[in-house]
Amino acid sequence: MKRIAISIFILVCSVPGLLFAQVEGKKGGVPRLSRQTSACVGCHKIYTPGIVEDWLRSLHSKNTPSSALRKPEITRRISAKKVAAPFENVVVGCYECHSLNADRHKDNFDHMGFKINVVVSPNDCSTCHPVEAKEFSGSKKAHAMGNLTKNPIYHALVETIISKKTVKEGKVLQQEVSDFTRQETCFSCHGTEVKVAGMQTVETKMGRIEVPALSNWPNQGVGRINPDGSMGACSSCHPRHSFSIEIARKPYTCAQCHLDPDVPAWNVYKESKHGNIYLSNYLKWNFNAVPWKIGKDFQAPTCSTCHNSLITTPDGKVVAERTHDFGSRLWVRLFGLIYSHPQPKHGDTSVLRNKDGLPLPTAFTGEITAEGLIDKDEEVRRKKVMSGICNGCHGNAWINNHFIKLENTIKEVDHMTLASTLLLLEAWNQGLAEGLPHGKNSFDETIEQMWIRQWLFYGNSIKYASAMTGAPDYATFKNGWWNLTENLQHIKDWIDLKKKTIPPK
Amino acid sequence: MKRIAISIFILVCSVPGLLFAQVEGKKGGVPRLSRQTSACVGCHKIYTPGIVEDWLRSLHSKNTPSSALRKPEITRRISAKKVAAPFENVVVGCYECHSLNADRHKDNFDHMGFKINVVVSPNDCSTCHPVEAKEFSGSKKAHAMGNLTKNPIYHALVETIISKKTVKEGKVLQQEVSDFTRQETCFSCHGTEVKVAGMQTVETKMGRIEVPALSNWPNQGVGRINPDGSMGACSSCHPRHSFSIEIARKPYTCAQCHLDPDVPAWNVYKESKHGNIYLSNYLKWNFNAVPWKIGKDFQAPTCSTCHNSLITTPDGKVVAERTHDFGSRLWVRLFGLIYSHPQPKHGDTSVLRNKDGLPLPTAFTGEITAEGLIDKDEEVRRKKVMSGICNGCHGNAWINNHFIKLENTIKEVDHMTLASTLLLLEAWNQGLAEGLPHGKNSFDETIEQMWIRQWLFYGNSIKYASAMTGAPDYATFKNGWWNLTENLQHIKDWIDLKKKTIPPK
Amino acid sequence: MKRIAISIFILVCSVPGLLFAQVEGKKGGVPRLSRQTSACVGCHKIYTPGIVEDWLRSLHSKNTPSSALRKPEITRRISAKKVAAPFENVVVGCYECHSLNADRHKDNFDHMGFKINVVVSPNDCSTCHPVEAKEFSGSKKAHAMGNLTKNPIYHALVETIISKKTVKEGKVLQQEVSDFTRQETCFSCHGTEVKVAGMQTVETKMGRIEVPALSNWPNQGVGRINPDGSMGACSSCHPRHSFSIEIARKPYTCAQCHLDPDVPAWNVYKESKHGNIYLSNYLKWNFNAVPWKIGKDFQAPTCSTCHNSLITTPDGKVVAERTHDFGSRLWVRLFGLIYSHPQPKHGDTSVLRNKDGLPLPTAFTGEITAEGLIDKDEEVRRKKVMSGICNGCHGNAWINNHFIKLENTIKEVDHMTLASTLLLLEAWNQGLAEGLPHGKNSFDETIEQMWIRQWLFYGNSIKYASAMTGAPDYATFKNGWWNLTENLQHIKDWIDLKKKTIPPK
Repeated sequence: MKRIAISIFILVCSVPGLLFAQVEGKKGGVPRLSRQTSACVGCHKIYTPGIVEDWLRSLHSKNTPSSALRKPEITRRISAKKVAAPFENVVVGCYECHSLNADRHKDNFDHMGFKINVVVSPNDCSTCHPVEAKEFSGSKKAHAMGNLTKNPIYHALVETIISKKTVKEGKVLQQEVSDFTRQETCFSCHGTEVKVAGMQTVETKMGRIEVPALSNWPNQGVGRINPDGSMGACSSCHPRHSFSIEIARKPYTCAQCHLDPDVPAWNVYKESKHGNIYLSNYLKWNFNAVPWKIGKDFQAPTCSTCHNSLITTPDGKVVAERTHDFGSRLWVRLFGLIYSHPQPKHGDTSVLRNKDGLPLPTAFTGEITAEGLIDKDEEVRRKKVMSGICNGCHGNAWINNHFIKLENTIKEVDHMTLASTLLLLEAWNQGLAEGLPHGKNSFDETIEQMWIRQWLFYGNSIKYASAMTGAPDYATFKNGWWNLTENLQHIKDWIDLKKKTIPPK
Repeated sequence: MKRIAISIFILVCSVPGLLFAQVEGKKGGVPRLSRQTSACVGCHKIYTPGIVEDWLRSLHSKNTPSSALRKPEITRRISAKKVAAPFENVVVGCYECHSLNADRHKDNFDHMGFKINVVVSPNDCSTCHPVEAKEFSGSKKAHAMGNLTKNPIYHALVETIISKKTVKEGKVLQQEVSDFTRQETCFSCHGTEVKVAGMQTVETKMGRIEVPALSNWPNQGVGRINPDGSMGACSSCHPRHSFSIEIARKPYTCAQCHLDPDVPAWNVYKESKHGNIYLSNYLKWNFNAVPWKIGKDFQAPTCSTCHNSLITTPDGKVVAERTHDFGSRLWVRLFGLIYSHPQPKHGDTSVLRNKDGLPLPTAFTGEITAEGLIDKDEEVRRKKVMSGICNGCHGNAWINNHFIKLENTIKEVDHMTLASTLLLLEAWNQGLAEGLPHGKNSFDETIEQMWIRQWLFYGNSIKYASAMTGAPDYATFKNGWWNLTENLQHIKDWIDLKKKTIPPK
Repeated sequence: MKRIAISIFILVCSVPGLLFAQVEGKKGGVPRLSRQTSACVGCHKIYTPGIVEDWLRSLHSKNTPSSALRKPEITRRISAKKVAAPFENVVVGCYECHSLNADRHKDNFDHMGFKINVVVSPNDCSTCHPVEAKEFSGSKKAHAMGNLTKNPIYHALVETIISKKTVKEGKVLQQEVSDFTRQETCFSCHGTEVKVAGMQTVETKMGRIEVPALSNWPNQGVGRINPDGSMGACSSCHPRHSFSIEIARKPYTCAQCHLDPDVPAWNVYKESKHGNIYLSNYLKWNFNAVPWKIGKDFQAPTCSTCHNSLITTPDGKVVAERTHDFGSRLWVRLFGLIYSHPQPKHGDTSVLRNKDGLPLPTAFTGEITAEGLIDKDEEVRRKKVMSGICNGCHGNAWINNHFIKLENTIKEVDHMTLASTLLLLEAWNQGLAEGLPHGKNSFDETIEQMWIRQWLFYGNSIKYASAMTGAPDYATFKNGWWNLTENLQHIKDWIDLKKKTIPPK
């Protein structure tokens, strides 16, 4: 019965005249929707109207690949040289994205007579945006999931933090970690592996329907592993069905993950001079212009200005090329690791090995690994690209001083981290705590947690504050030098007390 | 002398021609102000011009009850079926609100020849908005003050936190708590009891005048007890004299109270995908439309979308009815208590009793009280309303997965709370600390404070992050699993150290 | 070779026809640029286009001093009575600001044939804005650097926090503090002393050029000591080349430095009712109007409304005069010191002496110094100015209650600080810690750090929350009474444990 009702419904939804009238009304023109997308929109206007409205406001609903290709190259948002039929002359609608590469998609299923994928992957987007997809695929973002799970040290850190615990006989025991908790903690940003476990029946407003049963879903982490095997989620930064460049260029997008206490990029930015100008004036700026013109379209940078957008002077001279390899303008890695070091050559960092054979870019005592990181020349080249963007407003003496200061800060903060690491090693050596040298968990005791705070929270904050010449509070009292100093004292106190109350073995 | 000066002044202010000219100028029409409101505005334009300007921008200054009632019902902001004379055909001005139900108002006084109330209460607003006032009156918000003061356990917690302290002979002694500090801490949000202690003379720009002496005032807490005996303050969310639906629908309003570390709703929202879209795009949305249309008026929900606004599809089909009982779309209570549990049936939670007879919805060890909470059917009904709103943009499989994840998170977090509660009970049992079982304060020792942090700060953060599918940092490092884990370790360390330094009695 | 290339370049840039065409295009009129500024703009449009665009949007690029002086006095942004030739009849361009008082500027140098200063100082700005420069020069802001460095107690606090440390033989040893770290921590807000150490060669897009080698630069702290000997940086609040009154009036500007945990002004504001209204509605307000009219231009105050802007009623009656001495409307000093006290008479606070001869406005036990602070009459006068602004919207009874509450809060919080100070003094007296009485560092041990938190973080937060009638969370759980109480317990615990593990000497 329900099945019949649904069939009738689809028929009604799909009556072209009705549908086109609805959509035309929005746009005042005759959009060239594909027959399939017309059907999608016809039903989804009723069942999930929000995403249809979202799409109607997007460039995708108003442009066809061929119309996009007729624009001058520097203003183009499409990087394919040609998009073949049947997509060439229809707007980029539901079916155009959700039907691609069906053979690779384990989440492909029959939905009201159409074979569609639940998840649209970077590989699907590469139909029109191949340059962006390729750049992204080599980045640390694309590898964000594996970089946590394939690295036994990070993996142990993650699982120690997010596992359920029970206290038994005076010991804190780690129990299982659920996929649900993984999904909404570390892997909410790093990305989950979305798997298909057959089909399931779900109740909907139009009756029961069969859809793929996806695990670790929903997820929009940057390193998501998709049911087609590709890595990444374009919707991390171009959310939902507006596919907006404006949203991606606004710092709130980056701020979903780049937040204090561990990655305080947004926190530092909004308290910096650049952030001050942005927050006061951004309503007058143009976040949709391509290319993005210094001074004309914006008067202070956002995250995407420095890290990835195509930036030009007001008269169109290229200052920095667009990139979707988000680390490619960076020479030094500031955050997430015990000490700073040159950027890795490739996004997969699980292959790095420090002098002790551990999968880290530096030793616990700071020595930088010889292989897998970019060399001096590449560092200089990248710093020059970044300086070129600063140069849009700042003179070279200013810029030079800024980067000299940053370099000094990195050294001083890493020195403070080393001071605390030496205390931790002393505690391990003297049997006051148990960690790596004893083959035990290095992240579960109080002194170990204090040590993690030192580099993961306080060191990172100060380095970020320095890198963005801003947020003096993040360099001082808010997870800054105050905390670095106080915490070092606490680590020392912990050792002193432990020595008094537990005689070393 | 002064009295004469004032009288002359009023006379001048009230000259109708002058006044109307002033007000008309703003609006380009002839507003039908009552004679009394004309007098109010005439003086207050000079003495407190800000609130007059605020009101001039409001719908109240531009509509009469009868004009409001001529609108189609679904677009109405007025819920009375009829408003009688003398209010029917004048705009809703100063006198129309500040003169109501004078006999009930202990704060009613003679002000320049008019009998007015200082405080406008929900009961006064119910003249035009009876449905909203009634819904609100049964909510936890309306009972927010009594829920703290009438419950001896919460009361002890509150007073322990905000009392002045002195250290004497090695003991931290609690001294008095002032009404002033109550007013600006817990009861700033929960609401104070505004009392009238006779009249007082105040110096003003027009000389000395007599006004009621109100205690615990100013206050705009949601559970305020007003001088007319009613509960609540509409100005909590519709602030001052603009009575704005736009302000109430923007999350900054909720964010006055629903903030980290204890109620991090706004913090989680702004770091979620919904918050990302809101912050990037809200300037293009319509926060004044009634009904509020998914996709048309907004492209991502704010607090009020999910919790209380009248929501429809773009073509006007009702998705969720308006409600001013703010918990009525919720089935599970996430925050503010040791463990999660089904929502209470009624806003007055001080009547609940756990299995140990304490005024709590659960036992210290988590068992849920049998009475006073909604049943399974009601839980299902409410989840369906909320899911219906999600369904405006999201498919059912997505929504189902989301709520399954939330349920798991609640279980895991409550498990972590239980682990810490068992340690606290051990400490109490072994005489390492003194609490409830000894008839002593359960909230004033270090281990007790750590235990409170576990559920009130860290547990709440993770549950909120899960409920809004957002803010992975609040689930992880920012009062999340990191802190839940670290703090559990600290509780255990405290017990270990105590055992070493104070042999158990 | 390069020198020749540069010369040719300048020639090309300076061709008047070309230049004017470029600039005219922007503005649709014939701007009267000086010959020198034309040359500056000609090159910098190519080399640092962002600042040229910024300037083109400023009032400086559109007005000459003489046109500014033709406006009615109350609407003027210029406070000079007359500006002499050659500046009188040209717009305020690059050269008009960067060439002033060359003889005083150690950073003056020959740049492409023009003698210019790198740094524009308040003394330079005083050419057109003498009243503002004079007011500012006496403020605590202007003296912000010396107030930290000339006061041995604050200096020790600063250096203890931001020095590199090493742990040797169980002791945390302070090492050097670098100017770089000073520059990006405390002195990022307080200001650095910018010194000129000869000339340096820098690589630029147009080849190598000689510029002054500035140390402690870039910096925009409010108490910056400039190469001309003057104090302050107007760009702290009127950033870069837009010199915007709008930016200065928006709270993001103050929020660069007035942030939690030590100075949580912005944090408290944005969570207050005023902040709620601001954040919901500020897009409809006029931040450029001079004077700034209550109710007309804004419906809730921002920082600058209460602290320094020229405020009038909607019909232009002055409510508060403009001031650039930012403490001059304040009677009590809430933050940054152990206890509250009347505001200092002068911005240089290093001259104050408490009863023990220490350079502090109060004793460690709270007694207020007799000299150097404003007297009761002045306190009353200032409170009246501030109340007058509140009175724009609030009645006098409301305002009175507010300030009585604030006074009580200050007393209670200072009482809590005293309780912790007495514990610290006990620890010092009993030899559990070493501080001032032993001629030792008072800021480097754990109990000392806890004591600093008590007043610098928690006390300040509660006082701010009270002063702005807002942010109940900052008064309660977020660095509020919760933390004040918990931390007092920790201080007591520390002493108890120390007594048990280190027998007092």
